[in-house]
Amino acid sequence: MADLLSSIAGTIPLAPLSIKNELGLSSTEATFLLQEATAFAAAHGMLVQAPEARYAHLPYCLLPVKFPKKQFEKGVALSPLFGTLVERISQDPNWLHEQLASVLSEDPFTARLVQLSKKVLAEGRAQSASLGIFRSDYMLHDDPKDEQAAKILQVTLNVELNTISASFACMSSLASDMHHYLLSRFDQDIPSIATYYNTTGALADHLPSNNALKALPSALARGHKHYGKASAVVVFVVQPNESNSVDQRWLEYTLWTDYKIQVLRRTLNEMQHAVQDKSTRALIVDGKYEVAVAYYRSGYTPTDYPTEQEWVGRYNIETSLAIKCPNVTYHLAGTKKVQQVLANPSQLRRFMSESESKILEACFTGLYGLEKNSAQLQSIKAAVAANPNGYVLKPQREGGGNNYYGNDVVDKMKSMSPTELESYILMDRIVPQETPAVLVRNGQAISGATISELGMFCVSLFDNGKSIFNEHGGHLLRTKLSSTNEGGVAAGFAVVSSPFLV
Amino acid sequence: MADLLSSIAGTIPLAPLSIKNELGLSSTEATFLLQEATAFAAAHGMLVQAPEARYAHLPYCLLPVKFPKKQFEKGVALSPLFGTLVERISQDPNWLHEQLASVLSEDPFTARLVQLSKKVLAEGRAQSASLGIFRSDYMLHDDPKDEQAAKILQVTLNVELNTISASFACMSSLASDMHHYLLSRFDQDIPSIATYYNTTGALADHLPSNNALKALPSALARGHKHYGKASAVVVFVVQPNESNSVDQRWLEYTLWTDYKIQVLRRTLNEMQHAVQDKSTRALIVDGKYEVAVAYYRSGYTPTDYPTEQEWVGRYNIETSLAIKCPNVTYHLAGTKKVQQVLANPSQLRRFMSESESKILEACFTGLYGLEKNSAQLQSIKAAVAANPNGYVLKPQREGGGNNYYGNDVVDKMKSMSPTELESYILMDRIVPQETPAVLVRNGQAISGATISELGMFCVSLFDNGKSIFNEHGGHLLRTKLSSTNEGGVAAGFAVVSSPFLV
Repeated sequence: MADLLSSIAGTIPLAPLSIKNELGLSSTEATFLLQEATAFAAAHGMLVQAPEARYAHLPYCLLPVKFPKKQFEKGVALSPLFGTLVERISQDPNWLHEQLASVLSEDPFTARLVQLSKKVLAEGRAQSASLGIFRSDYMLHDDPKDEQAAKILQVTLNVELNTISASFACMSSLASDMHHYLLSRFDQDIPSIATYYNTTGALADHLPSNNALKALPSALARGHKHYGKASAVVVFVVQPNESNSVDQRWLEYTLWTDYKIQVLRRTLNEMQHAVQDKSTRALIVDGKYEVAVAYYRSGYTPTDYPTEQEWVGRYNIETSLAIKCPNVTYHLAGTKKVQQVLANPSQLRRFMSESESKILEACFTGLYGLEKNSAQLQSIKAAVAANPNGYVLKPQREGGGNNYYGNDVVDKMKSMSPTELESYILMDRIVPQETPAVLVRNGQAISGATISELGMFCVSLFDNGKSIFNEHGGHLLRTKLSSTNEGGVAAGFAVVSSPFLV
Repeated sequence: MADLLSSIAGTIPLAPLSIKNELGLSSTEATFLLQEATAFAAAHGMLVQAPEARYAHLPYCLLPVKFPKKQFEKGVALSPLFGTLVERISQDPNWLHEQLASVLSEDPFTARLVQLSKKVLAEGRAQSASLGIFRSDYMLHDDPKDEQAAKILQVTLNVELNTISASFACMSSLASDMHHYLLSRFDQDIPSIATYYNTTGALADHLPSNNALKALPSALARGHKHYGKASAVVVFVVQPNESNSVDQRWLEYTLWTDYKIQVLRRTLNEMQHAVQDKSTRALIVDGKYEVAVAYYRSGYTPTDYPTEQEWVGRYNIETSLAIKCPNVTYHLAGTKKVQQVLANPSQLRRFMSESESKILEACFTGLYGLEKNSAQLQSIKAAVAANPNGYVLKPQREGGGNNYYGNDVVDKMKSMSPTELESYILMDRIVPQETPAVLVRNGQAISGATISELGMFCVSLFDNGKSIFNEHGGHLLRTKLSSTNEGGVAAGFAVVSSPFLV
């Protein structure tokens, strides 16, 4: 969610706009709510760091966005299935390495992770338990064929699952608190709010509880307990100069306040100096702190490894007794290539039962591999040529390259070499449901038609394939102007939001 | 405490200083603690508003400052005595008006308040209950004659009592939380901290609990309950463009979260439009909200009344059925002139018993009226000439003018006309105890010898002289460089701090 943060940097100038009447609020009402929301956000730590030791409120959606209750509940129910899926893949590392073999030449970062995973496997895993903090992202798809039945579909790829460094959980809980405050405090004073939602009764009752701020620390604490040494610490593996540190800080403070567990923040570079106990492989930091849990908030993109030293740090963690959140097989199970393979019903059923698979597949969008020896390649190209706006062309490589839309898809599929094309994936384009909303950043409002992306957190702990816990862990709704296509002028202006269930 | 806020505005450039080793911490340790403290402060809302929709952490003292436990406890015990004193004065308004008669010609603001008070009295008080949120301020006086026995003495005047708009209660609770976190989280990791305090055991146990953030809303809520109408609101009477609003917001949020009481924020100017119910004198805002409690966070300085309209607002509140926090007699009881009169033992005993008076007088500093017909005037002048550094000359007028120190006292007492001199008060100069400390603002540290001022909050509710509650309500420690005399280059750089009881 780097886009949410980039909007703070102020690189995109935003003229002071008067709030349009998108919500049916008067300008006075909207301005009042904006002031109340901003004050609440700041006082409660919904902040990001800004230059010169300043803080800015996290950009937010002024009021919660309507969302179908059934679709939200479906997302809640889906969460633990992803925990199960990732764990089962992790138990089958040879399959995992095999699926990734075809992309390694084009993707040296994934190649390095596979190499690390094989090394861990060859040495024998020091730690049999695996901690997961995942986030599965969905959009609400307006099916043109069935207007009555908007449904959630996974974004980007079929199994759009963030298995490492899934962020904004704490900020999302704070956004939920802010919206709960606004709706419960002002629903009587400002009747236009109820009019906007076209409903009666207590508006705040439509907001689902969002325990992300408690669920994630609880998962880390239970991982710590499972490790079994009260004096051991949790290490947050962080990026240098992290700008989203307030989100991470809330995890740290809750671990201390609720569990008296100490958190150390270390970069991958610093972790090169960590050592392992020769007999137990316990991970020791600064010569004295034993690490129960290593929680990655970095390490997911090639730029997190500028030198070999960061790989030494990753290796130290990965081969140790510490419980990793996630370990390298969990990390690899979240790669786009694996997600693409799992779009194949027979592959998905390698890990999941028929009934589990059907539940998962209900939120899959159509997805098409572009292997050069694929028998379907010509018919796929023809389908794209006939309906260019129905597809998106996406690079498989982690953290790399742009997506292509519309006629660019046709052009690129023509101009790319078969090998290059193989490193891309084609998928049906989701038609996201649009909602009018007011977005606020730096205390200023902008309004218009918006689209939202629902992220569902799942927290899990497995030991030797046995579930210790595996449960839904709160949600994150992000909202952006629907004109915000990648490459558009307002790119990057996404805000934290909340679902108003209807 | 405007000085604490002015330091945010950045008008005094502060060069990036390396942290000197004042506390015996290494530079690495001090920098680490600074980062941890700043992050905690920001996440927990210890903030002030900065330009361009930004927030800055409130300037703070890096570590708590040593303070004698007995003196702190004395301050706690003193708190309710001031609640009693103010209430008893308020029950004797004719005495109050009489004491203030001599300053009215020089002080049109106080004259206006007296006029208002008399009007309320003439009309008959609509509301018999009086709510108080007071703060009594002390410094730790290093008695040159008795080095073993530093003791707290009231600042500025003998009875230095803020009876209106006593602020920074919530920020002070947050500072206490921050220091509690630092000491409990890092006392083992950074042994230099224990060395600095020259103590062993759990360092955080030396921090007194500070319930100000709960005590003030609780007082307002009990006032609201005493008013007796569940649907009524609390109005915060605020300054336009208040820069310390986060402090006030915490009161508002706690009133909502803990008591489901609605707060409206209105300026004195806006309160001109409030109306009173003709039969009950109930105060009605916006034609629909009945006001149970009017809580002043403005109205204490002449600049809060730029036009007659603000006086209309004050009048609307003052003559209404709403419980005022404070009412105008409480307000007047906190004026410097009244405080000076109470320095006279016989006047103090008009309101307090002999034993109560003795407890209060133990924290009084020597104070000398300068009335032109005073028999002592010549001997006072001689004493000042003999020891100019032993005295401070202070204007009686509320919110007005500088204090004079040293030879300036001698000069001013010579050059002023007898009438002008009468508007000043002379008092013994406190020799405040100095402590090395590191102060942080805008994420930057400065260190040196510091002095601290302890504020003790008292919350009270009386009805017709009968106490409903009257109790200590938390504390505020402010610390500043001891070179920070008024008029000095670093004027205004005070920070929130905490006492470390020894």
